Amino acid sequence: MGVKFLTLLTDFGLKDGYTGVMKGVIYRITPDAQIADITHSIRPQDVFEGGLVWSRSCPYFPDNTVHIGVVDPGVGTQRRPIAARLGRHLFVCPDNGLITPLLEQAEQAGDEVKIVHLDQPRFWLPDISSVFHGRDIFSPVGAALANGVSLEEVGSAISDPVRRSPPRTEKLNNGWQGEIVSIDHFGNATANIDRQQLQGLRNIRVRAAGREINGLVHTFGEREPGTLVAFIDSDDRLAIAIVQGSAAQEIGIKVGDRIEVVAEA
Amino acid sequence: MGVKFLTLLTDFGLKDGYTGVMKGVIYRITPDAQIADITHSIRPQDVFEGGLVWSRSCPYFPDNTVHIGVVDPGVGTQRRPIAARLGRHLFVCPDNGLITPLLEQAEQAGDEVKIVHLDQPRFWLPDISSVFHGRDIFSPVGAALANGVSLEEVGSAISDPVRRSPPRTEKLNNGWQGEIVSIDHFGNATANIDRQQLQGLRNIRVRAAGREINGLVHTFGEREPGTLVAFIDSDDRLAIAIVQGSAAQEIGIKVGDRIEVVAEA
Amino acid sequence: MGVKFLTLLTDFGLKDGYTGVMKGVIYRITPDAQIADITHSIRPQDVFEGGLVWSRSCPYFPDNTVHIGVVDPGVGTQRRPIAARLGRHLFVCPDNGLITPLLEQAEQAGDEVKIVHLDQPRFWLPDISSVFHGRDIFSPVGAALANGVSLEEVGSAISDPVRRSPPRTEKLNNGWQGEIVSIDHFGNATANIDRQQLQGLRNIRVRAAGREINGLVHTFGEREPGTLVAFIDSDDRLAIAIVQGSAAQEIGIKVGDRIEVVAEA
Repeated sequence: MGVKFLTLLTDFGLKDGYTGVMKGVIYRITPDAQIADITHSIRPQDVFEGGLVWSRSCPYFPDNTVHIGVVDPGVGTQRRPIAARLGRHLFVCPDNGLITPLLEQAEQAGDEVKIVHLDQPRFWLPDISSVFHGRDIFSPVGAALANGVSLEEVGSAISDPVRRSPPRTEKLNNGWQGEIVSIDHFGNATANIDRQQLQGLRNIRVRAAGREINGLVHTFGEREPGTLVAFIDSDDRLAIAIVQGSAAQEIGIKVGDRIEVVAEA
Repeated sequence: MGVKFLTLLTDFGLKDGYTGVMKGVIYRITPDAQIADITHSIRPQDVFEGGLVWSRSCPYFPDNTVHIGVVDPGVGTQRRPIAARLGRHLFVCPDNGLITPLLEQAEQAGDEVKIVHLDQPRFWLPDISSVFHGRDIFSPVGAALANGVSLEEVGSAISDPVRRSPPRTEKLNNGWQGEIVSIDHFGNATANIDRQQLQGLRNIRVRAAGREINGLVHTFGEREPGTLVAFIDSDDRLAIAIVQGSAAQEIGIKVGDRIEVVAEA
Repeated sequence: MGVKFLTLLTDFGLKDGYTGVMKGVIYRITPDAQIADITHSIRPQDVFEGGLVWSRSCPYFPDNTVHIGVVDPGVGTQRRPIAARLGRHLFVCPDNGLITPLLEQAEQAGDEVKIVHLDQPRFWLPDISSVFHGRDIFSPVGAALANGVSLEEVGSAISDPVRRSPPRTEKLNNGWQGEIVSIDHFGNATANIDRQQLQGLRNIRVRAAGREINGLVHTFGEREPGTLVAFIDSDDRLAIAIVQGSAAQEIGIKVGDRIEVVAEA
């Protein structure tokens, strides 16, 4: 079968060893696994941010990679644990909308979509805590899937996964209104407006955090350090940044802020 | 022999490349190693916290995993470097009590216990700094052990490892007094009181940080967001948390704080 | 060929999944890769710090390891992407001086030096963003090199890489004047003065941040906790630290501060 790839995305942070424990559980079941961390620094219990980062990272991995995602405010309640095949990849996570952006991508692309409720405890650890299903359910099931166990074996098909949709953009007379959905490590702010929505708009102005920016740059190098710029980011989203600085710190832009992009009338 | 697993736990942080250097040293000696990070964010020189995280993480890894732990305020002094077999696993670390919780677990379980003083420099890097034995001694010895070199080859048997015991709990008339030993990434506070000590106690009240909590919850979902709750955590310890919040930030609870659990008289 | 080792050093941080994406790109091209993180916490766009950490970490890895370094304030501009063989190792990075310390080490050691401008887009991802060449150019080229593709195939030879030299030390009558070039996770401050420059100096005094320290310690254990000490660090550089404390926090020493070391007249 070649190498068995798994990835981990959680809000567990790095200090407590929780993510190390998940790797131990996986290696015991799938000794030939190759495990990559996507991130463990999703804001605690921020299912929306988790879904966003997950959806832009997973597609770059090899076919049949098993992606385990754990942002799980409802751990221990009746919320279902699920697994899914979406096109080329497999996913394991709580049923709380974490998978929504990936599911919508797959549906729009016409990819294979199959989702199961993880209801087969023989694939879990023997003792199930009520607070750490990342260790007790999601890691052992992910490891089993990487070993070639089928979705049908680990759970029962469902067609009603919880969906948590991203904030919608609104069409304006001469552009779009959206909101900031992510601030990255550099303080760059990404909007829920994508490259396609900007097609056909000329002489664009972008308004956010009380500022107005004329036009888009193609690279940061087109402007002096310290300049506020708008651009299309590496995931084809409208974003704003300060060249060699932090837009989050310097103009105070944050997740949830309104952003408008308008063309010349 | 299959895959050779090693883990790393240190207080080195992630920014300086020190942990990357340790991996380089290991791969040069054991190219077929699979290395997992447990954590590198132990509080600088906090041997007790290191031991706690180590003891709850290592057991989840495959048999014969070599665990390298470096929290080492006495680096370069006469403190001995040691290695040990404790049951199914191997350990390499400074002799400063970091291994105490794992050693006590092994002794209580009746597991094999064998400890050696690392006094065979032929398994070390050629040049030994006085400040980075993680690179110069612990990584190359761990890599040798993963390659199948025996404990007897890398050091001489000892029976007097330094022990640093965790704070003890105290029996009360109708319960236990203990202390907070760990605050995790979510701000949850864990006590040195375990599930077994609570058996037989009815109508429990938990007192800590000037608050009193009635009863234990099984899952966070039983209470509204913002509620202070007590529960048994994923390592079978008494813990307190704020549902979808941070007990550390919101009630100021911290390591060393007294905690009491009492039953109805 | 055995295992194919790659390392990553970036200023991307850990929260956004960018480094996970790079690993996905590499694994798709080189499924049998073993990837080690050196660090992703270089100060944003601090090419000098990146070069320093890179130069002290890479040499510990196995021969023919491919090291990918991305600290890239000029991404998307005319700055060239490059790859190099320096002695036993391969490197891929932007041409902005990140490689200078490693290049100077190789030149001083008389190692093989071969540098190419990455001008062969068939080794890149099909779509090239203007802001994330770590994903689009450096990772796929690094993966190709790990697979055994030659430097000649991925680019055209150049002899004029951008050089960004570290700050120079100045010879004093009876010692050296230099500056602090790095503060590590423990708050220890490292100078650009090395062990060799101190040979022959007796009864050394070190002056920095308004303090004077008499003599060098060999290990931290020689002084009481809280004492300010000077020592030769694990990379053979003059450094100052507070025993079991943080020199950065407690005496406010920082990168760029002047440091003097003088011998008895």
